[in-house]
Amino acid sequence: MRYELYYWPEIQGRGEFVRLALEEAGADYVDVARRRGGENKMFAFMQSARHKQLPFAPPFLKAGNLVIGQTTNILMFLGRRHGLAPSSEAGLLWAHQLELTIADFLVEIHDTHHPIGSGLYYEDQKRESKRRAQDFLKHRAPKFLGYFETVLARNKSGFLIGARLTTPDLSMFQIVEGLRYAFPRAMRRLERKHPRLVALHDRVAQRPRIKAYLQSEQRIPFNQMGIFRHYRELDG
Amino acid sequence: MRYELYYWPEIQGRGEFVRLALEEAGADYVDVARRRGGENKMFAFMQSARHKQLPFAPPFLKAGNLVIGQTTNILMFLGRRHGLAPSSEAGLLWAHQLELTIADFLVEIHDTHHPIGSGLYYEDQKRESKRRAQDFLKHRAPKFLGYFETVLARNKSGFLIGARLTTPDLSMFQIVEGLRYAFPRAMRRLERKHPRLVALHDRVAQRPRIKAYLQSEQRIPFNQMGIFRHYRELDG
Repeated sequence: MRYELYYWPEIQGRGEFVRLALEEAGADYVDVARRRGGENKMFAFMQSARHKQLPFAPPFLKAGNLVIGQTTNILMFLGRRHGLAPSSEAGLLWAHQLELTIADFLVEIHDTHHPIGSGLYYEDQKRESKRRAQDFLKHRAPKFLGYFETVLARNKSGFLIGARLTTPDLSMFQIVEGLRYAFPRAMRRLERKHPRLVALHDRVAQRPRIKAYLQSEQRIPFNQMGIFRHYRELDG
Repeated sequence: MRYELYYWPEIQGRGEFVRLALEEAGADYVDVARRRGGENKMFAFMQSARHKQLPFAPPFLKAGNLVIGQTTNILMFLGRRHGLAPSSEAGLLWAHQLELTIADFLVEIHDTHHPIGSGLYYEDQKRESKRRAQDFLKHRAPKFLGYFETVLARNKSGFLIGARLTTPDLSMFQIVEGLRYAFPRAMRRLERKHPRLVALHDRVAQRPRIKAYLQSEQRIPFNQMGIFRHYRELDG
């Protein structure tokens, strides 16, 4: 079965967390909106009056007859299907809990450049962004990064859960990668205090399928339209 | 088995979504931090160096040997155990997708009074709150409420999913109730456009166990420390 991923074609955004899981799984998938006419296909699906199970927003994944929305929900589904999640109920809940906390972190990262409204331009909320980014770098980023550093310290294997890679490891790789793009100055300082997270990032980057994907044209470069954006004035 | 819910004792907050599910299920639970010494017990658990599966923040639920963090994760677990979720994989994913979208909505509701930093006082971010609340009431609240109204319209049963009540119905009740407290003026206008959501709210409020709970002292009143706060200057 070929999965169909629906997400904005020009950014990594939330879709990237799904792409990384699909890539690590070696799954057969098509990134629909990046194909010719695909973005219209995505809009048509979202605007159709037929579907009872309407997604609120991309990303969503079609898997046979299933249409799954919400990034963390998709990751839970893929993790289970492709051996990227623990097999016990307790393990599945723990993996999902970590993904949900990463998703919370991601909202706060996004809001550093959009603290007032996601429909407004950054330029229309620059002053507020500066205050929010300061608070984020001083309080929130250390709190989240410190939490995941502790989880790694207690698990001891170098992965967040058990002895094998699971989807939260992939997602945390993306968070570190994105924070480096958005806040290079602040991250140089933060990384010194979170060596296990840096090591996890490097370990994920060396997975053969992830490595090949990152070097391919499939990997959209970070840019100023995505969730992770670099504005020098926000970087501490 | 008696569940142990750990959450801040003085607010409804995110814990309330869990309480509503426990109440509707008729589950045996103790609201630990509201007991004498219970808040210290919660802090002790979070600060203990023993647990590998550390919650990032309350609420978390102990269910036998399981410790489950993240509100939506807890609701997924309880929904399955207590017949408050669909039984098929597709149905479970859809119910969880709706809970996740409600959780996204809740973050945006919270951020109307804390757009700059969750560790700062409202009074230190009043100007920014006013801008954010305006954007929220004009764009975001109608988008979220309109989405759930559409889901109800397409499902036709009066519930969000299938023919029976599931956890997202309970959570949506709480959202409507909270928005009425926080934004009474704006909600009078918004409710006229979302009659199915209002009807769902009323239907949930009439469930015997929910009705009894809402009238009991167990139900903490809304207040100015929670997620839903009423500031007249933010109410449109």
